[in-house]
Amino acid sequence: MRVALDAMGGDKAPGPIIAGALQAVTANPEMVVVLVGDQNRIETELAQAATRDRLEIFHASQVIGMEESPVEGLRAKPDNSISRCWQLLAEKRVDAVVSAGSTGAMVAGGLRSRRFLKHVRRPGIATVMPTAKGYSVIIDVGANVTPKPEHLFQYGVMGSIFVRHMLHRPDPKIGLINVGEETSKGHDLVRDTHALFNNSAWKENFRGNIEGRDIHRGAVDVIVTDGFTGNVILKLCEGVFEFIMQMVKRDVIGALTSERDQGAAALKGLLTKYHYSSFGGAPLLGIDGICIVCHGASDDRAICNALGMASEYWKSKLNETIVAELEVNPPGDEE
Amino acid sequence: MRVALDAMGGDKAPGPIIAGALQAVTANPEMVVVLVGDQNRIETELAQAATRDRLEIFHASQVIGMEESPVEGLRAKPDNSISRCWQLLAEKRVDAVVSAGSTGAMVAGGLRSRRFLKHVRRPGIATVMPTAKGYSVIIDVGANVTPKPEHLFQYGVMGSIFVRHMLHRPDPKIGLINVGEETSKGHDLVRDTHALFNNSAWKENFRGNIEGRDIHRGAVDVIVTDGFTGNVILKLCEGVFEFIMQMVKRDVIGALTSERDQGAAALKGLLTKYHYSSFGGAPLLGIDGICIVCHGASDDRAICNALGMASEYWKSKLNETIVAELEVNPPGDEE
Repeated sequence: MRVALDAMGGDKAPGPIIAGALQAVTANPEMVVVLVGDQNRIETELAQAATRDRLEIFHASQVIGMEESPVEGLRAKPDNSISRCWQLLAEKRVDAVVSAGSTGAMVAGGLRSRRFLKHVRRPGIATVMPTAKGYSVIIDVGANVTPKPEHLFQYGVMGSIFVRHMLHRPDPKIGLINVGEETSKGHDLVRDTHALFNNSAWKENFRGNIEGRDIHRGAVDVIVTDGFTGNVILKLCEGVFEFIMQMVKRDVIGALTSERDQGAAALKGLLTKYHYSSFGGAPLLGIDGICIVCHGASDDRAICNALGMASEYWKSKLNETIVAELEVNPPGDEE
Repeated sequence: MRVALDAMGGDKAPGPIIAGALQAVTANPEMVVVLVGDQNRIETELAQAATRDRLEIFHASQVIGMEESPVEGLRAKPDNSISRCWQLLAEKRVDAVVSAGSTGAMVAGGLRSRRFLKHVRRPGIATVMPTAKGYSVIIDVGANVTPKPEHLFQYGVMGSIFVRHMLHRPDPKIGLINVGEETSKGHDLVRDTHALFNNSAWKENFRGNIEGRDIHRGAVDVIVTDGFTGNVILKLCEGVFEFIMQMVKRDVIGALTSERDQGAAALKGLLTKYHYSSFGGAPLLGIDGICIVCHGASDDRAICNALGMASEYWKSKLNETIVAELEVNPPGDEE
């Protein structure tokens, strides 16, 4: 498979991005990575590499900054690395695009391309989250901050297929984030989405409303929410995790003397296990092709894992299943 | 001061509720608690009490269940303990109402009473949250799931006054929860709220948009958000905290041998420190009177702390300050 990797995207680009690509092509013998970005800077990084096998360069002279307005950036910088990645996908020169750059620009680039899978109304970003029962997927975490009920319904369907194919759970359960379990809770968006699920072929798999505290208990496999709430959830988890780990380090590890090193090593293990880089990236589901968005602070491990996810995704025929499923179970009325 | 306490509200009522009331009147010599609920059951609990000083009973024959629809419950059960609490406040027979029962019914009862402070459009629930820099307040965590920008603006103002009076921080900074820091981010509600703050006398204290991960870093003192997002945040924090503590217990404490007891004791200390019961309850700000809603699982310590918060609130003249502030800085156009 061929992947376009935004070599300029991310807080630490291009160094760790290219290092991650090197690791990924070594681990995946059938993967070719097209490094999209400033040719000179990429060449400089590659000069030290042991091999350049299955690494290509596609020059892009511009970069959209992390703090830049995505729409402005895409308009003002036509030769930016993100647009070039999407262009390679549109021209079918690659099967997947991966970037740790501006998530907003990646999504806007995808929306602008209008290369959605058949029957998909709006793509959504799915993220794998650790829970007490393994892993769950939450969708959407920021592609669509003002979704319609049909979008959330489709997120549930696409998220379930992702869980089946990628987490190998045959019968995923779906939950809708709300402020309480009762059907009457929340605002129109969640009430209408609740009704859509209950009137669909997915009713059996729909567990109804779930609350914030149910996520990490592993109450469901697929957590459906609007991109505003989902984005807050994702970043809040990061913040709470960071905060509690500091407190544990100070109060618990600090209380130890002879076994302090032992405790600190175990804590470090936990930090590594639940660090975002273990999962690499989050797929933008609903795109005709594969799109993985990565954390802005991605290191080489995160990029390598994101490329690995793209490879798994490609092999799993996820997109074909989504189209087939939405074909037989359309999401209510056309817009 | 006089407080109406919903003796029937909460998962474990009335036992720990009444035990909490006993502790509170012992700790606060000027507090009288009116126990609202089933007279027989309250009498049974009080039979074992060392004293009944400053404890009164107001009989209410019905209870609104935690899973019941708040609006239905209030309608179908006119003699429920929550409505009786609000009635006592309306009749000025108490200064405050406290309940660990259905938050929805408490809020709906307050909205129905229309006893808002002058200039307040909609009350909002403020919750104290631990952060790396001490404590912050988040408002709203569930009173208003479809707020208008003016409501969010007022939440910022009321939350700031709460922080000044109750957390004794003279110059609180306000942040608005959004999906990114840039002004253009998010949906209309947050963009319009952002503009309201920037065009107000509170501009100097407004730090603009903050993201989920900024909350626990203590980036601001007052976190403003809609009641849907705020409720998800509150319950998610509970879930993440529970999850990580389990992981730490398993992986970190489990890695210890000779110092395992020491580590476990330190972890238990952390759990107690950040347990919701340390804060007791969350005030519904904007009510003409004092209203504290408590966690459904409240134990005696939580109830005692909630009653203590009601006492501090009463002494601080918080409500008078809110009215004076909204008098000089009105929140945009009248509805």
